[in-house]
Amino acid sequence: MKTTDRPLILISNDDGLDYGGIQTLIAIARRLGDVVVVAPRQHQSGMASAITVSRPLRAMLHSDEPGYRVWQVDGTPTDCIKLAFSHLLGGRTPDLVLSGINHGYNAGISTIYSGTMGVVFEASAHLVPAIAFSHENYHPEADFTPCEATIEQVISAVLRDGLPTGVCLNVNFPNSASYPGMKITTTAMGHWESEYEHRVDPHGQDYYWLTGHYECDDPDDDSTDMYWLGKGWITVTPCHLDQTDFAAMPVVATMLDVAVAKG
Amino acid sequence: MKTTDRPLILISNDDGLDYGGIQTLIAIARRLGDVVVVAPRQHQSGMASAITVSRPLRAMLHSDEPGYRVWQVDGTPTDCIKLAFSHLLGGRTPDLVLSGINHGYNAGISTIYSGTMGVVFEASAHLVPAIAFSHENYHPEADFTPCEATIEQVISAVLRDGLPTGVCLNVNFPNSASYPGMKITTTAMGHWESEYEHRVDPHGQDYYWLTGHYECDDPDDDSTDMYWLGKGWITVTPCHLDQTDFAAMPVVATMLDVAVAKG
Repeated sequence: MKTTDRPLILISNDDGLDYGGIQTLIAIARRLGDVVVVAPRQHQSGMASAITVSRPLRAMLHSDEPGYRVWQVDGTPTDCIKLAFSHLLGGRTPDLVLSGINHGYNAGISTIYSGTMGVVFEASAHLVPAIAFSHENYHPEADFTPCEATIEQVISAVLRDGLPTGVCLNVNFPNSASYPGMKITTTAMGHWESEYEHRVDPHGQDYYWLTGHYECDDPDDDSTDMYWLGKGWITVTPCHLDQTDFAAMPVVATMLDVAVAKG
Repeated sequence: MKTTDRPLILISNDDGLDYGGIQTLIAIARRLGDVVVVAPRQHQSGMASAITVSRPLRAMLHSDEPGYRVWQVDGTPTDCIKLAFSHLLGGRTPDLVLSGINHGYNAGISTIYSGTMGVVFEASAHLVPAIAFSHENYHPEADFTPCEATIEQVISAVLRDGLPTGVCLNVNFPNSASYPGMKITTTAMGHWESEYEHRVDPHGQDYYWLTGHYECDDPDDDSTDMYWLGKGWITVTPCHLDQTDFAAMPVVATMLDVAVAKG
């Protein structure tokens, strides 16, 4: 791909190339810059920031046009971004990394299991601004047309202004034909209840299917993504890959009777 | 397992039962409480907080003695903790969740790829205190004897005092016969360089092996885990599963010309 003056946008997801979500995102991004897609070859839902350590990766070139190149990698979403930075971008650093559009929300603590979010956290490690887009409708044929103007607006703003160092955005859309607007939100803490359905196979052996429902720790907290998605709004949650709890440092230091690190 | 007055300690890891690390941790924990181990059946290094969504899980009872029960699950470390809370603890909530001892550091942003950390983040989602232990020596036969007193001290302190809500501890040990002490640290931000080795197979096809070395964004920052591990100290980093960047919220609100969520 020729180097141009247009911004270079790297795109991945956790569903692979066949889903409408990534195709919608590619179409929008191609209006705004040169695009390289590095997508997983197989479905990678729930793969978080998992990386492949026990076997090597393969990359297959799927499309190659001026300003547009598409690869498939037989690994996780995070593998895709790592291999892009390491080899597939030919040494160029992208101006922006995009992930999604995921078919299904990545709100609440779904962010920690999400391969869609794994993409943007890996971009953050490389200090490149990144945006994850997810949509309530998990049907492969979901219509994302009502989201397109907002997606283009958010991408354009980040291309123009950047993001604070190490910050990525987690954008979620309810399944709706229109939206009252967008809110800047926090991640709703919580956990899944009744998380596995216990069944017995024809040979009398137990097995467990993942299922369940999300319980917010505080469903009335009107700062959270889950609260505003429930009211039909688009939510934008700034995230950081640093999971250090700075406020807890002096508490733990006192508890263990040791010093907080410095000098 | 009978219910007793002793604390209930749930243990997992990402290496499986055969490694010395988890066996060392089990031996220490059994001195302090009743222990249930739910460990992955296969190696799960680099699995982060990945969950199994496309097939059901199986759990096999491996040992069952008074105050001590061991399960193996054919899934990820996070699956192990989820299935424990959902079914394998018989409805009891553990007082503490332990992970490791991992053979290999989980310092710097390794925390985001680490199955060892996936265990403790899942415990945090259930609001249960949790501690991950990792050791520089990745050899399966590594000798963790010099760490045992400190591990018992940290576990005892958390059993006594708890941890702030949603906080877990990430404890790392250099490979050493003795230590100058322990520091409460932050996670060293950075990324891997030269991350894949490109090779060509006998059929002329490219493949890529994960390798590389970690580059700290600021190697002189004397608040970080990487800095103090490099000086031979034990590090304790308090972590939280909430990845919201609260400081970035007003910045992003201004950039997108929308409101920060509230009421």
